[in-house]
Amino acid sequence: MLFIVIHQAYELWFKQLHHEVDSIVAIMGKPALNDNSPELQTVVHRLNRCVTILRVLVHQIDIMETMTPMDFLDFRDMLRPASGFQSWQFKELEAKLGLKFETRHGQEYYTSQLKPHHVDIIKKAEAGHSLLQLLNSWLERTPFFDEQPNWNDFTSHEPLDGVHPFWSEYRYQFQQSLAEAEKGNLAAFDQLFLAKENKPQGLTLSAAANRAALFIMLYRGYPLLQLPFQLLNALLEIDEQLSSWRYRHMNMVHRMIGTRIGTGGSTGKDYLKAAADKHYIFREIAQLNSFLIERRRLPVLPQAVQQRLGFTAA
Amino acid sequence: MLFIVIHQAYELWFKQLHHEVDSIVAIMGKPALNDNSPELQTVVHRLNRCVTILRVLVHQIDIMETMTPMDFLDFRDMLRPASGFQSWQFKELEAKLGLKFETRHGQEYYTSQLKPHHVDIIKKAEAGHSLLQLLNSWLERTPFFDEQPNWNDFTSHEPLDGVHPFWSEYRYQFQQSLAEAEKGNLAAFDQLFLAKENKPQGLTLSAAANRAALFIMLYRGYPLLQLPFQLLNALLEIDEQLSSWRYRHMNMVHRMIGTRIGTGGSTGKDYLKAAADKHYIFREIAQLNSFLIERRRLPVLPQAVQQRLGFTAA
Amino acid sequence: MLFIVIHQAYELWFKQLHHEVDSIVAIMGKPALNDNSPELQTVVHRLNRCVTILRVLVHQIDIMETMTPMDFLDFRDMLRPASGFQSWQFKELEAKLGLKFETRHGQEYYTSQLKPHHVDIIKKAEAGHSLLQLLNSWLERTPFFDEQPNWNDFTSHEPLDGVHPFWSEYRYQFQQSLAEAEKGNLAAFDQLFLAKENKPQGLTLSAAANRAALFIMLYRGYPLLQLPFQLLNALLEIDEQLSSWRYRHMNMVHRMIGTRIGTGGSTGKDYLKAAADKHYIFREIAQLNSFLIERRRLPVLPQAVQQRLGFTAA
Amino acid sequence: MLFIVIHQAYELWFKQLHHEVDSIVAIMGKPALNDNSPELQTVVHRLNRCVTILRVLVHQIDIMETMTPMDFLDFRDMLRPASGFQSWQFKELEAKLGLKFETRHGQEYYTSQLKPHHVDIIKKAEAGHSLLQLLNSWLERTPFFDEQPNWNDFTSHEPLDGVHPFWSEYRYQFQQSLAEAEKGNLAAFDQLFLAKENKPQGLTLSAAANRAALFIMLYRGYPLLQLPFQLLNALLEIDEQLSSWRYRHMNMVHRMIGTRIGTGGSTGKDYLKAAADKHYIFREIAQLNSFLIERRRLPVLPQAVQQRLGFTAA
Repeated sequence: MLFIVIHQAYELWFKQLHHEVDSIVAIMGKPALNDNSPELQTVVHRLNRCVTILRVLVHQIDIMETMTPMDFLDFRDMLRPASGFQSWQFKELEAKLGLKFETRHGQEYYTSQLKPHHVDIIKKAEAGHSLLQLLNSWLERTPFFDEQPNWNDFTSHEPLDGVHPFWSEYRYQFQQSLAEAEKGNLAAFDQLFLAKENKPQGLTLSAAANRAALFIMLYRGYPLLQLPFQLLNALLEIDEQLSSWRYRHMNMVHRMIGTRIGTGGSTGKDYLKAAADKHYIFREIAQLNSFLIERRRLPVLPQAVQQRLGFTAA
Repeated sequence: MLFIVIHQAYELWFKQLHHEVDSIVAIMGKPALNDNSPELQTVVHRLNRCVTILRVLVHQIDIMETMTPMDFLDFRDMLRPASGFQSWQFKELEAKLGLKFETRHGQEYYTSQLKPHHVDIIKKAEAGHSLLQLLNSWLERTPFFDEQPNWNDFTSHEPLDGVHPFWSEYRYQFQQSLAEAEKGNLAAFDQLFLAKENKPQGLTLSAAANRAALFIMLYRGYPLLQLPFQLLNALLEIDEQLSSWRYRHMNMVHRMIGTRIGTGGSTGKDYLKAAADKHYIFREIAQLNSFLIERRRLPVLPQAVQQRLGFTAA
Repeated sequence: MLFIVIHQAYELWFKQLHHEVDSIVAIMGKPALNDNSPELQTVVHRLNRCVTILRVLVHQIDIMETMTPMDFLDFRDMLRPASGFQSWQFKELEAKLGLKFETRHGQEYYTSQLKPHHVDIIKKAEAGHSLLQLLNSWLERTPFFDEQPNWNDFTSHEPLDGVHPFWSEYRYQFQQSLAEAEKGNLAAFDQLFLAKENKPQGLTLSAAANRAALFIMLYRGYPLLQLPFQLLNALLEIDEQLSSWRYRHMNMVHRMIGTRIGTGGSTGKDYLKAAADKHYIFREIAQLNSFLIERRRLPVLPQAVQQRLGFTAA
Repeated sequence: MLFIVIHQAYELWFKQLHHEVDSIVAIMGKPALNDNSPELQTVVHRLNRCVTILRVLVHQIDIMETMTPMDFLDFRDMLRPASGFQSWQFKELEAKLGLKFETRHGQEYYTSQLKPHHVDIIKKAEAGHSLLQLLNSWLERTPFFDEQPNWNDFTSHEPLDGVHPFWSEYRYQFQQSLAEAEKGNLAAFDQLFLAKENKPQGLTLSAAANRAALFIMLYRGYPLLQLPFQLLNALLEIDEQLSSWRYRHMNMVHRMIGTRIGTGGSTGKDYLKAAADKHYIFREIAQLNSFLIERRRLPVLPQAVQQRLGFTAA
């Protein structure tokens, strides 16, 4: 009884999460978001609701843990191989957010655990526009750097060919801020933010999108960037809650069945552990923190850009 | 959508809570519980599971709070008068635990908000053996004081007529422990623990049951009393979580609709606030703490009683 | 040992809370806040940090609850009358936020429990500019309604003499939205939002401030109002966490000493319960929800005002 | 200011944790614990208090996360190399619980980050009797299997030479319960529970101790085994909270400084991640779940043993 109720409760909340993510994807999929409309605010609000729901889902594991391992063992036999741990709805959600099959840990094991028509549903979700892709497009549309006249007075300590003066300067300051042992980080900077190719191997965001995201983090104090910053932050929160869920789930399984073979026919913990580590969806956003600099080094923006980032009459 | 999913999730967990409480009532309703069987342990385990579920229910209010007041207002009109706030399943649960109609706050308002056949279900639950009643019977069956030979060597500083020597002594020590301004508490002690009548007006436990419960709290260090103590504690936790639920629910309603008339047709907050204060079910157990004494005053039990409370061969 | 460590931990966090509140008061006390500067963002960020700290303080009560009532009883005698429950630092914090002596529950009891020089510190905090007062001034400075040309095209269904057309119209729509049993709320509306006197008896915000706050809640979707809305929300969160703290503290005391006289020489729970109910500091902000209307009734703002609330070039 | 207050709060609670663990070690270090005395109950109570304190410590990370990465970066320079992340008090606590230097991840890095006299304190803690060692001795003293007459009537399906009939039978039932792919687990069973040598390489509990612990988990329903079971459970909770702490700490550091070199001069996250995985102290207790069997296979204990595990007169 308890086992069934818990799973129904999870399915219910997954349904709601799908509903929220679908509506977010619909808004983010528009060719342009009007900064003065409440659209972006709606996106942030709904992402934060997803975070709240995920927190409750993580907490619900407490209830599952009131089952004793021996209760669980009796149960295991009844379930195999359609495992309760392999919720296709959860995987479909991951796919909508942006997790690709290629990135998943244990690909064969993963499909072998699901019914074919569930695999189809997940593949279909992967084929659509994921939130990660739409985020990439939205970030790429950021207009500030293309408005050349605004940057006329801005000079860099070390201008680089074919690089916007702001980013030449930022790269210079970043280099200055590196400790001896960190010097290698400059190559990573160049790959993430200055790559010429569209998307370097293994990355999910383009250099232009990464630049926009870093700019948002750096200058979040300006009115126009506050909501975009909250959006990036909400995405990181979602990743963190998904990760907490996988992690607590993993510990729970370990407590219940130890290294016994899971209801899915393979060692649950090993699989879940590897998955918990690899399945960060917005990890490039999370990595941006590696490229921040001390506040005192932060380039002062030209007046025209500052005005651009502010309110009309204030 | 969100509103509906939240309510389905609540109904699901209420169903599980009923399942747990029914099974607990079934065990507690047996003519005798064998201390060496795992029955009592099962009761405690399931009560603790109820606490865990209630904690998740309280947490779920966070999700409801992601709705803005104006969203809620639109919704309110659709719901009246079958109010979402008046879950009959919750009330049935309160009834099974031991809350009586006479004790409920706002009795008329309360019934006017429910459909007649739901009122019937709740009345039926009230008519059955509640957990509170079964607790009373179980406590009354406590055998230690009736085993007279064990107490032969025990003497009281102030023997009272018709009162067991242990309780004469405990009353004496309690009186000594009272500060000047607390002297009035002695009358309350006599009413709760030494009343001759079966159950004094307004009380839900008999004097014999109250004595047993206090004894359990005082001597919980002895092996035989450990599980009984955990049982009492779990009941207090349930009351506390029910109270948290009513309290957070009340604040949420207040945030959402202020002093607007609730979906039930009357000011939600005032009703809920009064209910939150009055609906403690095991409040006599909670009050026992008023009658504890300092550890150094605690009467030493006779060897025979101590042995009675211990393990066979240890 | 545990008791002492808990109290040191509380004092530590109170010190940090004072530090945060002082810095917030310093910013809010400036003659004007520039909407394009990060000042308001700093205020919101620090208020939210206060909320986070208060949440941990509430959680810390769990640790205190690991003491058994009898441990506590032994302890009680050592403490009286300088009671651990009567933290003057907590009271000083309440005073800085805006709680006045006149509003406190049990005024005599309250001062009798504190050392004279602590009372002086609290009185001094009350005498300064509280966050509540600064909030009132900041709200009163809201400029939109005074910019008359922007409202030229706006007409009300029921113009009122000496009342801004927007508020005439809003009052009309509010009246339409009231259910039969709610008609009395109109008088409350007039008192809170249209009063001519500066601050009607018993209120802590002026009519102008209340109007600004309601406007922020209604039109929070516009960029310029997003941070102000988050500020109001953070204040409500602070009140809610303070209330949770008082509530859980109250339950803990009740669990520990029942109706025994508290370490302060009077029944702890009764005092704390009344205090928990009366000490909401930003309660007029909380009450604004009573005066919202359905989204479909919300007056459409003139183009000029909408532009005023948006970004420069977007 | 915030950074300092947070660290003072952590030091305060670490001090309390040391106080609790020292008192637990003192009790567990006695040559024998009387099952009828409250000693074991005190141990369990204090272990659970440690769990409660650790939970608050985990929650406190929320406060640290209200610092922005750029705030943190400014700070980092001031701290190096005496890193705030390398609390020697935390490491001393791990040592008292039973973590050995050899087991620690990144041994060189680890000592290079601490001041020599702190390393000495930790080494001293490692040299003393750890809780893990005392647990091993306490489990080894379990008397039930040595009381031969009690087992006269007990027969095994597959008696093994030099193995107690109960464990011969349990091994048989365990073997029956293994799925095809799990057959390899039998070798692990033999190594953990039937090894002749004192402590097989890499293990921290002897075979006799492991047998006692598994017996406690299997027959926890019997009165005498309830507290021992709660003790094992509390140890697992402590490991889980320590793990949560390392995990959230790791995520927080990652959020703050990305892959920048930590205040300790090396990549914080990589170190912390590996540490979080390797530092489970009571992992052999956690692994016992791998060796449970379905309830229906559980050997019925002889009457004499059942009586031995029960209350005197019940």
